[in-house]
Amino acid sequence: MITSNQNSKIKLIRALMRRAKERREAGLFVIEGVRLFEEAVDSNWEIKFVLYDETLSERGKKKLESLKNIEVEEVSASVMKSISETESPQGILAVLKFSQLPTSDSLNFVLIPDQIRDPGNLGTLLRSATATGVGAVLIPPDTTDAFAPKVLRSGMGAHFKLPIQEASWEEIGQVVKDMNVLIADMDGKSCWETDLTKPTVLIIGSEADGASESARKLANGKISIPMSGDIESLNAGVAGSVLMFETFRQRNIK
Amino acid sequence: MITSNQNSKIKLIRALMRRAKERREAGLFVIEGVRLFEEAVDSNWEIKFVLYDETLSERGKKKLESLKNIEVEEVSASVMKSISETESPQGILAVLKFSQLPTSDSLNFVLIPDQIRDPGNLGTLLRSATATGVGAVLIPPDTTDAFAPKVLRSGMGAHFKLPIQEASWEEIGQVVKDMNVLIADMDGKSCWETDLTKPTVLIIGSEADGASESARKLANGKISIPMSGDIESLNAGVAGSVLMFETFRQRNIK
Repeated sequence: MITSNQNSKIKLIRALMRRAKERREAGLFVIEGVRLFEEAVDSNWEIKFVLYDETLSERGKKKLESLKNIEVEEVSASVMKSISETESPQGILAVLKFSQLPTSDSLNFVLIPDQIRDPGNLGTLLRSATATGVGAVLIPPDTTDAFAPKVLRSGMGAHFKLPIQEASWEEIGQVVKDMNVLIADMDGKSCWETDLTKPTVLIIGSEADGASESARKLANGKISIPMSGDIESLNAGVAGSVLMFETFRQRNIK
Repeated sequence: MITSNQNSKIKLIRALMRRAKERREAGLFVIEGVRLFEEAVDSNWEIKFVLYDETLSERGKKKLESLKNIEVEEVSASVMKSISETESPQGILAVLKFSQLPTSDSLNFVLIPDQIRDPGNLGTLLRSATATGVGAVLIPPDTTDAFAPKVLRSGMGAHFKLPIQEASWEEIGQVVKDMNVLIADMDGKSCWETDLTKPTVLIIGSEADGASESARKLANGKISIPMSGDIESLNAGVAGSVLMFETFRQRNIK
């Protein structure tokens, strides 16, 4: 049982949780909690090792026992608490390997969260993307790291179902070159009047700054959500979700 | 200038920010920040008094100078910081009187956030309600207080544009008795196939517990958001927003 904060696994986890740079260099990220752990196992995600403590629920233990050939180690509850980023740790934490889910060659729905810095908003966007048939999420340079602990928490498993890829604007330009690239913008054309059944890329900018200059260069047009009254804007998570669900609606109604 | 935490105004504000009971008994609530203050002034909301400190921006000062016959007092920056609930206080804070905005007699779109306990989710729902022509929001007993500081912050001014009323389920039953009352539920009828142009009440339950027993008794039916893949649910703020925007779409397309 690991009882020291100086243990090498504990030090690794702490570094991975705190810094995107460490995650990229090691090719690893950390998830916490029973539900995310279940999602990772159920999707056959590659697991490097798992730590648990005595507070783990029966449900969590059951999933843990289903693992084969994976390193599992007990830690003291106090060590777990010291590394956990949640207010009520659930006694389980796993280090996973980055492994790009395959992106469909013939993409027809791509999400680009642009300059989104709030982890909760990014997680919300990823969750809605999974629910609306998005084929890939491309993360441009100024967006917060999609594998940060808070984004993983609010994504609630979206990370295991959806290809999420960091990319430069140049790379993004290559991937989306034959698609209709639309920026969400209050001054855009109504989403109800935009044909979203064609291969579409939605760029969702941040609430504070909107979309970046690079995004504007890439785009073919702007798209807006019609609203009543004098609301200035919606938060990026909600605006992006409404647009993704409108796309999904247009593609699935008879 | 107020320099003491024991000042009666400071003590009042602290109590109002912390407890729904204090807000109800005093008939007062507190807003923080330049933008919410502007929204309150622009909507002619009744202001009891305003406190500011030397850190207030020019934009905030300008709005402050536009006030007539309202008590305005300077506080020291350290007192402001001690009462503020935000990480970066903007040097302005106002105590406002509850004043029910008139509810249209012929309501045709009502939102009921049921058992929503997360203030951010409730604020998101209020913001989307304002953007989609909701005529009134009814807050049942087990939902978090809509005038708590965090709900006011994430509502971003929705509170000044939308009638928001606490009500018992009995009172709610009276108000919505001739309307189509629909609970958001994964097992419901697709929102695309539900006629939302009729007078409609949307009940959005919490992510954890769904809608309450009382809500289920009141409802005429269930409504769902069609989704791709094996997503379990969306968060209440997003699910409610998508359903409100679908209602708005059905009512506004030609």
